[in-house]
Amino acid sequence: MSTAILLAHCPDQPGLVAAVAHWIQSNGGNVLDLEQHVAEDLNTFFLRAEWEYAGQAGTIESLREAFKADVGDRFSMSWRMADRDFRPRAALFVSKQSHCLFDLLSRAHAGELPAEIGLVISNHRKLEPVVNRFEIPFSHVPVTSDTKPAAEAAARQLLAEHDINFVVLARYMQVLSAEFVSDWEGRIINIHHSFLPAFPGARPYHQAHTRGVKIIGATSHYVTAELDQGPIIAQDVVAVSHRDGPKDLVRKGRDVEKIVLARAVRAHAERRVLWFNNRTVVFGT
Amino acid sequence: MSTAILLAHCPDQPGLVAAVAHWIQSNGGNVLDLEQHVAEDLNTFFLRAEWEYAGQAGTIESLREAFKADVGDRFSMSWRMADRDFRPRAALFVSKQSHCLFDLLSRAHAGELPAEIGLVISNHRKLEPVVNRFEIPFSHVPVTSDTKPAAEAAARQLLAEHDINFVVLARYMQVLSAEFVSDWEGRIINIHHSFLPAFPGARPYHQAHTRGVKIIGATSHYVTAELDQGPIIAQDVVAVSHRDGPKDLVRKGRDVEKIVLARAVRAHAERRVLWFNNRTVVFGT
Amino acid sequence: MSTAILLAHCPDQPGLVAAVAHWIQSNGGNVLDLEQHVAEDLNTFFLRAEWEYAGQAGTIESLREAFKADVGDRFSMSWRMADRDFRPRAALFVSKQSHCLFDLLSRAHAGELPAEIGLVISNHRKLEPVVNRFEIPFSHVPVTSDTKPAAEAAARQLLAEHDINFVVLARYMQVLSAEFVSDWEGRIINIHHSFLPAFPGARPYHQAHTRGVKIIGATSHYVTAELDQGPIIAQDVVAVSHRDGPKDLVRKGRDVEKIVLARAVRAHAERRVLWFNNRTVVFGT
Amino acid sequence: MSTAILLAHCPDQPGLVAAVAHWIQSNGGNVLDLEQHVAEDLNTFFLRAEWEYAGQAGTIESLREAFKADVGDRFSMSWRMADRDFRPRAALFVSKQSHCLFDLLSRAHAGELPAEIGLVISNHRKLEPVVNRFEIPFSHVPVTSDTKPAAEAAARQLLAEHDINFVVLARYMQVLSAEFVSDWEGRIINIHHSFLPAFPGARPYHQAHTRGVKIIGATSHYVTAELDQGPIIAQDVVAVSHRDGPKDLVRKGRDVEKIVLARAVRAHAERRVLWFNNRTVVFGT
Repeated sequence: MSTAILLAHCPDQPGLVAAVAHWIQSNGGNVLDLEQHVAEDLNTFFLRAEWEYAGQAGTIESLREAFKADVGDRFSMSWRMADRDFRPRAALFVSKQSHCLFDLLSRAHAGELPAEIGLVISNHRKLEPVVNRFEIPFSHVPVTSDTKPAAEAAARQLLAEHDINFVVLARYMQVLSAEFVSDWEGRIINIHHSFLPAFPGARPYHQAHTRGVKIIGATSHYVTAELDQGPIIAQDVVAVSHRDGPKDLVRKGRDVEKIVLARAVRAHAERRVLWFNNRTVVFGT
Repeated sequence: MSTAILLAHCPDQPGLVAAVAHWIQSNGGNVLDLEQHVAEDLNTFFLRAEWEYAGQAGTIESLREAFKADVGDRFSMSWRMADRDFRPRAALFVSKQSHCLFDLLSRAHAGELPAEIGLVISNHRKLEPVVNRFEIPFSHVPVTSDTKPAAEAAARQLLAEHDINFVVLARYMQVLSAEFVSDWEGRIINIHHSFLPAFPGARPYHQAHTRGVKIIGATSHYVTAELDQGPIIAQDVVAVSHRDGPKDLVRKGRDVEKIVLARAVRAHAERRVLWFNNRTVVFGT
Repeated sequence: MSTAILLAHCPDQPGLVAAVAHWIQSNGGNVLDLEQHVAEDLNTFFLRAEWEYAGQAGTIESLREAFKADVGDRFSMSWRMADRDFRPRAALFVSKQSHCLFDLLSRAHAGELPAEIGLVISNHRKLEPVVNRFEIPFSHVPVTSDTKPAAEAAARQLLAEHDINFVVLARYMQVLSAEFVSDWEGRIINIHHSFLPAFPGARPYHQAHTRGVKIIGATSHYVTAELDQGPIIAQDVVAVSHRDGPKDLVRKGRDVEKIVLARAVRAHAERRVLWFNNRTVVFGT
Repeated sequence: MSTAILLAHCPDQPGLVAAVAHWIQSNGGNVLDLEQHVAEDLNTFFLRAEWEYAGQAGTIESLREAFKADVGDRFSMSWRMADRDFRPRAALFVSKQSHCLFDLLSRAHAGELPAEIGLVISNHRKLEPVVNRFEIPFSHVPVTSDTKPAAEAAARQLLAEHDINFVVLARYMQVLSAEFVSDWEGRIINIHHSFLPAFPGARPYHQAHTRGVKIIGATSHYVTAELDQGPIIAQDVVAVSHRDGPKDLVRKGRDVEKIVLARAVRAHAERRVLWFNNRTVVFGT
C-alpha cells in the first residue's frame, strides 16, 4: 500500500469536497485524513487529503495525471500531490549561531524529522566541525555585498547537486536576492527572532528590552522579497520579566526559536502548509 | 438557506468520507466545513460536517430520516444531526462561588455564547441576587445527604419545565447520583479546579500547594459515574511560584477555571465534541 | 500591627539595601517581603519592601517623614510609601464593550480585587444598566471632538468628587488629552487589544487576521501622551489558527484582554509596579 | 572584584534581612541582587543574595567563616555560600534517548550553560559516539538488578574521579538506590516526562493518551527515595489534541522535556534553588 497527500486550493464553490472524496474512492483510495477550510474573506477553498491506495491503482505520476484531468482543471485548482513516503531534502543555511542547527541535526539523528538534511551551507567556517560530526556535507560559501551574486550562484549549484527540495534559514544572517527568493518561492523557511510583526529587522531582542515587553517570541515564515513579511507558519512565545537583560532575552529566545523552526520544518515536510495571499493554512493544527 | 451539522462515529472502513460527502451533495447541500479523524488505536472513524442547504431540500427532520436510511444504518454509525441555528438551552448548577457563573452570564449578556442560559439551580441562596440581575430564572434546591433523591427529582422537574438541553456544573460542589448522570449522559459538563488527572477530589489547590507544583490548571469534562474521571473536553494552565500560597492558587486558578469552562460550553453548544471510550474528539481545535 | 509598603528607585550605589533594611528595623518594623532589582543598562536601583510595625512605631505619615529624612533624601530616591490596608479607589472608563467591565465588577463583587471601584464613566449609556446592578455610581459623559475639553473637565470633577486614585480604561475608545494624561501620570491603566508593539492603533484583530499571525495577545500599560506607547505592565497571548476569522480573533482576544487588565490592576493596586524610562518593574513576578 | 552568592533558610523572625544586608555591607560587599521569601505555612524564611566584594575583603572561605560566626549560627540558619565564578561540574546519566543529552551538550558547546559537563555515564553504548563528538568523557556502566550495587559503586568512583558536583538524569531509565540518593541529596536532578503528580511511573505518554488529556507536560525535580515524588524545580506543558497518538505525544513531549530540564539545571547551577519540606523556592522566577 502507498499513501498519497493532496494539497489544493481554488475559488470556493459547492461540491468540492464531494468531488475530491469521490475521485479518491474511484481511484482505489481509502481516505485516512481529510481536512478542508474555507477562508470566507477570500472566498477560497483549501483542502488536504491523505489516502492509502494499492499499487495496482497506479503510480503517483499516473494519479497526478488523472487528478488533473478529472478534478484539478475542472475547478481551476492550484494543487500538489505527493507520495507520503518521499522525504524531502533540506539544505540548512547557517551563519555563526548553532542552536537551531544543532536542534535540527539532533532531530534528524534521532530519526524524528520527516525530512533529510542533505547539505549545510554557511558564510562562515565556525560551525563546520559541528556539521562534520553529523557526517553531513558542509559547504563554505562566504558572502560580501560584492560577491553576493557569485555566492548565490554557488549556492544554487550546490542545491542542484544535492537534490535539495527546500531551504531552511536556520539563523542565517544574510538577505537573499529577490531573484533567488522568487525561484524558490514557497520553499525557503526562515526563523525570525521576534514575535512578528513586532520587531522586524535587526536586533529584535534589544528592541524588545528597550520597549519593556513582558513576553518575547519567535516566528517561522516563508521568505518573500520583503524582509520579515512572508506568510507565517508557526509562532510561539515565552514570558520575560524586568530581571531579564538583553542577554537573557537572547538566551530565552533561542529556546523558542529552535522549537518554532522545527515545528515549521515538520509542517512543511509533512505537506501540511498551504499559502495564499500572504497567509498560511497549516492543516492539523 | 439553512445549515446542518452532522457528528458521527463508527468502526473505520474505506469510503466513509466519500459516502458522507456524496450524500450531502445529493441532498442539495454545500459543505462549509468537514473534518474527519481516525483514532487508530480504537479503529474508529469520527466526522463532523457542516453544510448549507436550501429549504426545498427538506427539513432537518427529513434530512435525518434520509441520512439514517442512506448512510447511518449502512455503516452502523452513531450520529446526531442538528440545525446550526438551534441554540441549545443550558441550566447552570452553582453553589456559592460566583466566578464561573458571572463569566457565563456576562458572555450570554454580550451575545457571545452559542447557547441560551435558561435556568440557574443552586443549593444556596447566595448567588440568587446575581442571577436576578440578569433576569434569568433562579431555583433554590437545597441538598443534604438525606434529601438528595428529592432534590434531584426537583431538579429533573425544573430541567423539563425549562426545556433544558444540557447541564453545566459551574463550581457546583455536590456529587450527582449515578442515575441522574446516566440519564443525562454526554449532557453534563463539569469544571474541576485542577489539571486532571492530577489532584482529583477535594481541595485541589491545597494539594497543589503542598506538592509544590510550578503550574496549576483546570479541566472541563463530561460527568460520568466516577468522580472526576469523565472524558476531558478542555484544559488550560497558569504558572505559579513559591510566592503563591493556597489563596493565591485559588485566585489564579479561578481565571483558568472560567476560561476553560466557557471553552467547553462553547465547543459542546457548537456540536464540535464527540466522545468515545472516555476520550473526546473536539473538532476545530 | 500595621503593614507598610515602600516603592523606591534611585541611581545605583553600594549600601542601598542595607540602608533600607536597617531603617525598617530601626523603626520597629519586621520585613515580610523585600525585593530589589538593578537595571544595569540604566544604572538604576529599584526596591519594594513590605513590613509590619506596631502602632507605637508611628503613623504612616510619621514613617514617611522619617524615611525622607533618613534615607530618601540621602540617596536621591524617588519613592512612595503606603499603608497596605488602604485600598485605592478606581474609576473605570468604558464605552460599549462589556467584557472588561463585567470582569472587574465581578471580581470586586467577589471581594477578590485589592481596590474599590468607586465610579464608572462612559461616553455611552449602553452599559449603565450593568453598572446599576452592581450599585456603583455611573456617569454618562458623552464626548465629541468639539466637546472633549468640557467632557474631560466633567470627568476630572467626578474623579475628585469620588476620591479616585487611579483610572482604568476598560476598552474606552477615546484618546485622552495630553494634559489629562500628564496630570494623571502613572495612574491611568489601559488595555490594548494586541500584543504591543504589534498592531498599535485601530482594529488590531483585523490587522492580525490580515497578517496571518498564529498567536494574538493583549497588553496592559500605563497611558502616556503617545498612543499605545506607554510602559507595559502585563501581556498575555492565545493561539489562533487559519480557522479563526476576524470575529473569532475578537472573541478569543476578549478573554485575554480581561485577564491581562485584571492582572495589571491588581499589580498596580498592590503597589508592585515601578516605572522608569518607559519600562516597568513589576515586583513579585 | 569577586561575587559571592548566599542561599539561606531558617525559622522566620524579625531582623533577618537587615542582619544579612548589614553583614554584607560590613564585610565590604555591595548587594547586586537580594530576594527573600517567607513561606507562611511553614513559618520559614528563605533568602538569596548576590554581592560584589574586593579581594582585600577576604576569600570565599574566610567569608564563610565570618558569616557562620556572625549570622548563621545566631539565627540557626541552613546556608551555603559560593563564588559565582565557580562553575559546578555535572555528570549526565543517560540511557538510549538522545534529545536531552544533545540539548545539554549543545548548550554547553555554545557556552550557554552555567555548568561544566564533566562526564556522561550510560548503561548502554548507543549514545557513546554522540558524546565522543563533543570530546566529553563517556563511561559505559551497565546495570542489571544483580549488578546494581556494583554499578553504583563504579558510578560513585567515576563521580569522585571527575570532581562532579551534581548529577543530571537526562532520561536515565534506572532507579537509583536509596543510599545513593541519600548521599547525593539535593544534587540529583531528574526529568520526568509528565506533568507531575499526573502520570508518575512508567509510560506516562501512553497513560496520557488513554486518559485523553488535552495538555501534556514535563517535570524536573530533585530525586528523593520515593520515585517521582521529589521537590519540583521546573514544569512546562504543551497542548495536544485528539489527532495526537501516543507517538505524537512522545515527540511533542521531548521538546518540553529538554527545555524544562535545561531550565532546572540552569537554576541549580546558578544557586537559585532552595528546598525545604519537599517544596522548592526558585529565586528569580
